[in-house]
Amino acid sequence: MMARSERERSRVGDARASLAAALAAAAADFHRRGWCLGTSGNFSAVLRRAPLELLVTGSGLDKGSLGPADFVRVDDRGRPGEGESGRASAETLLHLAVCRQRDAASVLHTHSVASTLLGEHFCEKGGFTVAGYEMLKGLEGIRSHEAEVFVPVIVNSQDMQALAREVERVLTERPEAPGLLLAGHGLYAWGDDLPQARRHVEILEFLFELILHRTRLAPFGG
Amino acid sequence: MMARSERERSRVGDARASLAAALAAAAADFHRRGWCLGTSGNFSAVLRRAPLELLVTGSGLDKGSLGPADFVRVDDRGRPGEGESGRASAETLLHLAVCRQRDAASVLHTHSVASTLLGEHFCEKGGFTVAGYEMLKGLEGIRSHEAEVFVPVIVNSQDMQALAREVERVLTERPEAPGLLLAGHGLYAWGDDLPQARRHVEILEFLFELILHRTRLAPFGG
Amino acid sequence: MMARSERERSRVGDARASLAAALAAAAADFHRRGWCLGTSGNFSAVLRRAPLELLVTGSGLDKGSLGPADFVRVDDRGRPGEGESGRASAETLLHLAVCRQRDAASVLHTHSVASTLLGEHFCEKGGFTVAGYEMLKGLEGIRSHEAEVFVPVIVNSQDMQALAREVERVLTERPEAPGLLLAGHGLYAWGDDLPQARRHVEILEFLFELILHRTRLAPFGG
Amino acid sequence: MMARSERERSRVGDARASLAAALAAAAADFHRRGWCLGTSGNFSAVLRRAPLELLVTGSGLDKGSLGPADFVRVDDRGRPGEGESGRASAETLLHLAVCRQRDAASVLHTHSVASTLLGEHFCEKGGFTVAGYEMLKGLEGIRSHEAEVFVPVIVNSQDMQALAREVERVLTERPEAPGLLLAGHGLYAWGDDLPQARRHVEILEFLFELILHRTRLAPFGG
Repeated sequence: MMARSERERSRVGDARASLAAALAAAAADFHRRGWCLGTSGNFSAVLRRAPLELLVTGSGLDKGSLGPADFVRVDDRGRPGEGESGRASAETLLHLAVCRQRDAASVLHTHSVASTLLGEHFCEKGGFTVAGYEMLKGLEGIRSHEAEVFVPVIVNSQDMQALAREVERVLTERPEAPGLLLAGHGLYAWGDDLPQARRHVEILEFLFELILHRTRLAPFGG
Repeated sequence: MMARSERERSRVGDARASLAAALAAAAADFHRRGWCLGTSGNFSAVLRRAPLELLVTGSGLDKGSLGPADFVRVDDRGRPGEGESGRASAETLLHLAVCRQRDAASVLHTHSVASTLLGEHFCEKGGFTVAGYEMLKGLEGIRSHEAEVFVPVIVNSQDMQALAREVERVLTERPEAPGLLLAGHGLYAWGDDLPQARRHVEILEFLFELILHRTRLAPFGG
Repeated sequence: MMARSERERSRVGDARASLAAALAAAAADFHRRGWCLGTSGNFSAVLRRAPLELLVTGSGLDKGSLGPADFVRVDDRGRPGEGESGRASAETLLHLAVCRQRDAASVLHTHSVASTLLGEHFCEKGGFTVAGYEMLKGLEGIRSHEAEVFVPVIVNSQDMQALAREVERVLTERPEAPGLLLAGHGLYAWGDDLPQARRHVEILEFLFELILHRTRLAPFGG
Repeated sequence: MMARSERERSRVGDARASLAAALAAAAADFHRRGWCLGTSGNFSAVLRRAPLELLVTGSGLDKGSLGPADFVRVDDRGRPGEGESGRASAETLLHLAVCRQRDAASVLHTHSVASTLLGEHFCEKGGFTVAGYEMLKGLEGIRSHEAEVFVPVIVNSQDMQALAREVERVLTERPEAPGLLLAGHGLYAWGDDLPQARRHVEILEFLFELILHRTRLAPFGG
């Protein structure tokens, strides 16, 4: 019995180590691209479905030098699990809200110049549509460049409970949204596994660059 | 006899391994530059001329982490060769069309912001001309910056048979075209060998950046 | 006694080696991003508080290839310490002024396209305000994206004594400023330790990119 | 005697190997930045002053993968030295002209988007002035940001003899020019040694980025 539980623990430990390493690798590439400079961005992966357990970046860490020890295991209300020493990112509740609404296995939040500006620009309209680009096909479930994708934008807030409810509301209202922007704050994307979430980030950030190029000539508030 | 056929197999295996490694290296550099984010882009090299056999990226793979095992050998109709386990990229028929029309040894499809936008911008006109730049001389057969090069743009489609025919038609009509764009979908370039194809990608993507800078002030549809 | 002083020396030597390595690592990343090309930029960290001793980049060095030996220990008036062979950066007096005014442990001066242009653009107004962006929260002491941050701009000068006095004056007048720009010359940022200073550079350079995108449509002097 | 000549040969061989390695390292960094994509750009260093001998990139090579064997020793008329197997870059005569006019020890030609566009934009006026930027101080002999630097632009040509004479004429006419542009073809910079030439490239390319940002709003021909 003892032996089995030890094997179980070691298996869980292996899964955690491997997810932490993959999250850190994604963060390193995003940081190089300028998508999570300073302390911006945070990254998570599901450790267990029921009850929900998440591995998420610790609070306030520089995203250019994340190591496997910089992640915290939290429960379905964002509380650190037994034996965890770090404090989880303040935005953990948003990660949990996305996981529940989308049954996601990984949530990645980047904070690029393009996603920050587009969130600000389209905030009043509640979002914007991307259509006609082949790159859309890299998003799960999309089979043609003729797809129309709506990217919702949510007003930013420091009240994480309220923001998490708003995320849930918008994702319910927009069941097809492949990601969402917080105004002036960047992108939340997710996936059925971590590689898919990472792919979704790359695709959405690419599309935001496109849109930014195209809106550059329209008057921009500020 | 046996020994000879083994040596033959091993020589073919070496060629394949070396082409796969070179394709993966090109993809890694393109991905770093943002020219094949997510699942976008695909890459091929000719394994045998007659009958035509192509080594091409597997279907739907992330282009940021291609390894030597992520390529599939296909015949001249895009069907996986004997013993191949992966599924070839959906765009394999376009690679085959280019190989036939241009007698190319390698076809590289990138999907940058500049190539996506220029394809969209110049689609109605069927393409655009690049002229007067020294960089043109890096394209095979061009000896002076005074050359004029026409880059055709094809309307994007999910019907690969139709798109392949359109590629063949346009390449026949424009025998001097050094590459072609699919609207909102990026660049197809090729070469007499893989290094030349890679060089052509770099040169065309550079020229597209130039053109994008110059068209930025003109009103842009959308 | 002898033994103790040797241990002390070795401890100080270790601290210096570790700060020099961290400064060189920051410089390498900044150089890759184009934030300290050529001889531009300089970087320092406090070795001792009282009396103040600074480890600072040597004069006129290429910032793309800094090694641990490329830093000079200076006293609180910028004079090389005993046994130092190199000459300290001409801007050492500015580093010392910032250290005194902000009780900083590290001062990092970058010289990006965005910081150069914004300094030039907002010089007459004495600076500019950044407000409403979540990224502001990465700056020490800021808790909400609703914060307003004023970035002062100082007229550039080759008189380092006068420029250092101007830095002191502006930092006294603007106790909340998280960094300052020299017009046409880039950013000075700082922190309570070297990682915080590096984070502040990343955050401010990101915000400058944002502002540059937004001001691109407004007429730009020149 | 024999022994001495062998030592001499080995010393010359060491110098060549070390210059080739430094040129290849500069090229690799420039290529990563997009300043010498495809076959564009070429790089040289002086092996002997009198008579002049130059080590210069071979003709038509991809600049993303230069190794120490990709350089050719040429004499003062651009002819390969005894025992050289490669063919020198077509632009070797321009390198030689710069070396003679400026007594330079290294000439580096980059081909970035910014230098290509600015050369095209300012060709009719024969060049443009850069003034007021601190970055200018990284150019040899400049002591203040208040300096005014004129960057000449020469009409591009495939007649290398004529172009070399034009380079000589312009450099004579503009003894203070820190570099020169060929219209639609990029930058030639140089230095008293290879690190200085590389620094000058970084500084000039940075200044061109600045100027390009500032001219973006002015109507751009084409």
